Amino acid sequence: MKKSLIALAVLAASGAAMAQSSVTLYGVADAGVTYLNGNDNWSGVTSGNNLTSRLGFRGTEDLGGGLKANFVLEGGFNLDNGDGASGYAGAKAGEGFQFKRRSTVGLAGSFGEVRLGRELTAAYNATARYDVFGSVGLAQSRLWADGGVVDANANAAAVTTNQRVSNMVTYVSPDFTGFKVGLNYGFGETTNGNSDSSYLGAGLMYDNGPLSLGLGLERLNEGANSVATSDIDAWSLGGSYDFGVAKLLAGYRTSKVDLAAGENKRNGAYVAVTAPVGPGLVRASYNRYENKLNGGKAKADQFGLGYVYSLSKRTSVYGTYAYLKNKDGASLYTLGSGGLKNNGSQQGVQVGVSHAF
Amino acid sequence: MKKSLIALAVLAASGAAMAQSSVTLYGVADAGVTYLNGNDNWSGVTSGNNLTSRLGFRGTEDLGGGLKANFVLEGGFNLDNGDGASGYAGAKAGEGFQFKRRSTVGLAGSFGEVRLGRELTAAYNATARYDVFGSVGLAQSRLWADGGVVDANANAAAVTTNQRVSNMVTYVSPDFTGFKVGLNYGFGETTNGNSDSSYLGAGLMYDNGPLSLGLGLERLNEGANSVATSDIDAWSLGGSYDFGVAKLLAGYRTSKVDLAAGENKRNGAYVAVTAPVGPGLVRASYNRYENKLNGGKAKADQFGLGYVYSLSKRTSVYGTYAYLKNKDGASLYTLGSGGLKNNGSQQGVQVGVSHAF
Amino acid sequence: MKKSLIALAVLAASGAAMAQSSVTLYGVADAGVTYLNGNDNWSGVTSGNNLTSRLGFRGTEDLGGGLKANFVLEGGFNLDNGDGASGYAGAKAGEGFQFKRRSTVGLAGSFGEVRLGRELTAAYNATARYDVFGSVGLAQSRLWADGGVVDANANAAAVTTNQRVSNMVTYVSPDFTGFKVGLNYGFGETTNGNSDSSYLGAGLMYDNGPLSLGLGLERLNEGANSVATSDIDAWSLGGSYDFGVAKLLAGYRTSKVDLAAGENKRNGAYVAVTAPVGPGLVRASYNRYENKLNGGKAKADQFGLGYVYSLSKRTSVYGTYAYLKNKDGASLYTLGSGGLKNNGSQQGVQVGVSHAF
Repeated sequence: MKKSLIALAVLAASGAAMAQSSVTLYGVADAGVTYLNGNDNWSGVTSGNNLTSRLGFRGTEDLGGGLKANFVLEGGFNLDNGDGASGYAGAKAGEGFQFKRRSTVGLAGSFGEVRLGRELTAAYNATARYDVFGSVGLAQSRLWADGGVVDANANAAAVTTNQRVSNMVTYVSPDFTGFKVGLNYGFGETTNGNSDSSYLGAGLMYDNGPLSLGLGLERLNEGANSVATSDIDAWSLGGSYDFGVAKLLAGYRTSKVDLAAGENKRNGAYVAVTAPVGPGLVRASYNRYENKLNGGKAKADQFGLGYVYSLSKRTSVYGTYAYLKNKDGASLYTLGSGGLKNNGSQQGVQVGVSHAF
Repeated sequence: MKKSLIALAVLAASGAAMAQSSVTLYGVADAGVTYLNGNDNWSGVTSGNNLTSRLGFRGTEDLGGGLKANFVLEGGFNLDNGDGASGYAGAKAGEGFQFKRRSTVGLAGSFGEVRLGRELTAAYNATARYDVFGSVGLAQSRLWADGGVVDANANAAAVTTNQRVSNMVTYVSPDFTGFKVGLNYGFGETTNGNSDSSYLGAGLMYDNGPLSLGLGLERLNEGANSVATSDIDAWSLGGSYDFGVAKLLAGYRTSKVDLAAGENKRNGAYVAVTAPVGPGLVRASYNRYENKLNGGKAKADQFGLGYVYSLSKRTSVYGTYAYLKNKDGASLYTLGSGGLKNNGSQQGVQVGVSHAF
Repeated sequence: MKKSLIALAVLAASGAAMAQSSVTLYGVADAGVTYLNGNDNWSGVTSGNNLTSRLGFRGTEDLGGGLKANFVLEGGFNLDNGDGASGYAGAKAGEGFQFKRRSTVGLAGSFGEVRLGRELTAAYNATARYDVFGSVGLAQSRLWADGGVVDANANAAAVTTNQRVSNMVTYVSPDFTGFKVGLNYGFGETTNGNSDSSYLGAGLMYDNGPLSLGLGLERLNEGANSVATSDIDAWSLGGSYDFGVAKLLAGYRTSKVDLAAGENKRNGAYVAVTAPVGPGLVRASYNRYENKLNGGKAKADQFGLGYVYSLSKRTSVYGTYAYLKNKDGASLYTLGSGGLKNNGSQQGVQVGVSHAF
């Protein structure tokens, strides 16, 4: 929530006109030691357990008349080994740094904001914010991270994760007494002139005092070359209420697609709580995942508990514990390397440092 | 033409000596929606239509006695999807950010400037500046961008586009009453000790009030392993005259090489005009391309029209229209994805935002 | 030794709290012309001959009570062609920029400093500092750069050069009357739960007035899948004494591993001298390398001479000469492209500019 601001003096090449502007260099360096106990044990240094490690550049220019131009360039990296690769689909080990987290240019005014480029979808922004583990680390909700609307074979051009979409035109409304709407259209950019691989989504957010609600709607247009024989539709819902002494959160997400093997429906839900304890925050969540394919059903439960101890507004040390249990012989998810125990379970801990700059 | 300047205080490790210096962080974020009408229609979000999207770092140090040291590190990226790849030969989809637009270190004084590294050639700088569309977007002149002196199989080490060359020693003269000369030698860096793949070029510029002229000369030394059986030679000429109410521009480029199939000669020419209209600039150009191979001749015509509306000195919205027509059944060029119509033509529009920082 | 410091004002998102912080953007742009005389002659523009070309971001935050948080993100690049690849194992031509030189987050206090991530090992830091050519360029000591403890097949996850290790937990002690200790543990991160590929190392440094000493100890845990049938052990020792008019330096390094072909032992030693002459520094070194495999022994000698002329504290021009001679028909090392002469020798010169920012 804090930003390093570099004050810049913008100089005309002629030396004549002079205006004030700002470019912000910002980022996160987060690494910790992770231990996993499953079929085999695994230990190592992992990056981005509390906040994703990232480096970004962004700026805003006041154009007058209430109009502003802005840009954001943000990429992830693995702090444990320096790789630029950052978890988007198609990333290779050792790959260079790039602006895969966000690359946008936009114009903002009283009408809201219009942006072009790659970023988190409005649907994701509306409801993933209720994951108390911030979509990172062992105990993150896998509703968005692993499962969900996008299959790997679809929309290579427009969608490279199920959280971020490339080639988008985005509209974000101003705040209407607590309500805010975001709309995304991601071009499929197919060469045969149809709408294959295009993405359409919307997010609705309501924030008023202690109450926060979010709704996300998504459709990914599937082409004939995909493993899917229908469009992929998804919706998600979430909310939180801050009682002061503690905050309660909950979320739900479902997606549906027809595959050659039959209808595939993925559902997931979580309830979570955070409570300030001392200089830090206790976080706990319970997730339930379901994956139904042509009548069959696979299920998994996940429990997470963590504490974030703030050394300052920018720097924290954290500890996280997660337990995952796949039911009935399924292997829907793992927490990481090392594999599941025979009973389908795996548990792990992470201890580390998170520094925002 | 504007730069974001970060004032830096250079501190000796000992804390003793202190001097003033500057490093500049700069760049462009440009994206728009492109629609192409050809054999198939194509639409999408594209990066760098008015100005190439880029991020750079550069600095200058005053060494005293009129001598200055400088460096430039500049890379391109695709704002539509965050890729670091930026159109140089050999770039792969998803490739990381790198300083392929320019990476140089130099010393400048009353003698001019000597630089080492990769950058635009002097020949390109001298004459490509008369393309009113700035060598980017649908309506750019393809004299430099697609056609020209460098074939893909040659000089992988030293030349990775036909605009920029690696491994160069560059000299740029001071201004002599409007005249300026640039010289480039790019090492071929072959292991067998000969001069294969080396690049030699020169650019002459004359700028005096409303009149501007440029001449470029280039030779690429071809080795036995290339598809070429001779060196590749090229020269280009261009000029402009600013009448105030409008500016007229024209350019010509020709290259020649012997291939196994016979002599290959590429020629191209354009005439163009820009005129300030309201807060923006109207730009129009007509290009003619010719490719002669062993007696046969392929031709194409291209027409471009655009308007750049300046919201500030750094931010613009733009619209560009281009029409390309290959003659006599040839398919010399396309404007982009979707393919040519049966009559060899394709047209397209781009609307977008360009923000320099 | 100098740093460009960007003063940053850290603003709370609420606009309320405000604290001072700093992020430093720094780097080196170094390129020169290299000529090699061996079996074939080779010439070209090369990057990082006096100081490795690099770009980095680093910052420190004062957490109060003597505690500080810090991060370093630093990557190398090839200034001659703009590539992000920088000599680490597995780097590909044209690869993007990434933080392979260093990516760490740490906490420092009166207890010393604990860091997580990838960086130079403490053993390397303790003794490689006596190489008068700074481990770069033609005349660098190859004790660390090419030979040494790490074979290419081992520890792909944790060790990607023999100087830097990924996935490390690092401890650096405070200064005890001139003594300083560094400890590294690099996780192997194997999925089968054993300690294969893990790295353990220590460095001891003593610096007191004109006298400087260093000791490095390393063990790389080899797994069954490696070409090695034992762990790899190495130790190194070095020192220098500054007589004012000149500084004398010396170093030794040895590593041992059992291969299928028998015991492999690599030894190397150097003596060196630097002396301030005019505004610059003369540097000279003599290296002797030995590689014993199952009784057989290959040897090489290397002589280097250089001058670094300082135009300022940040900018230098340099010239370096190196002569390498492999003995008794061996081909332990080369200076670069072009191959060895029939007598096993190669020589070369480098002239260039080095600019730190």
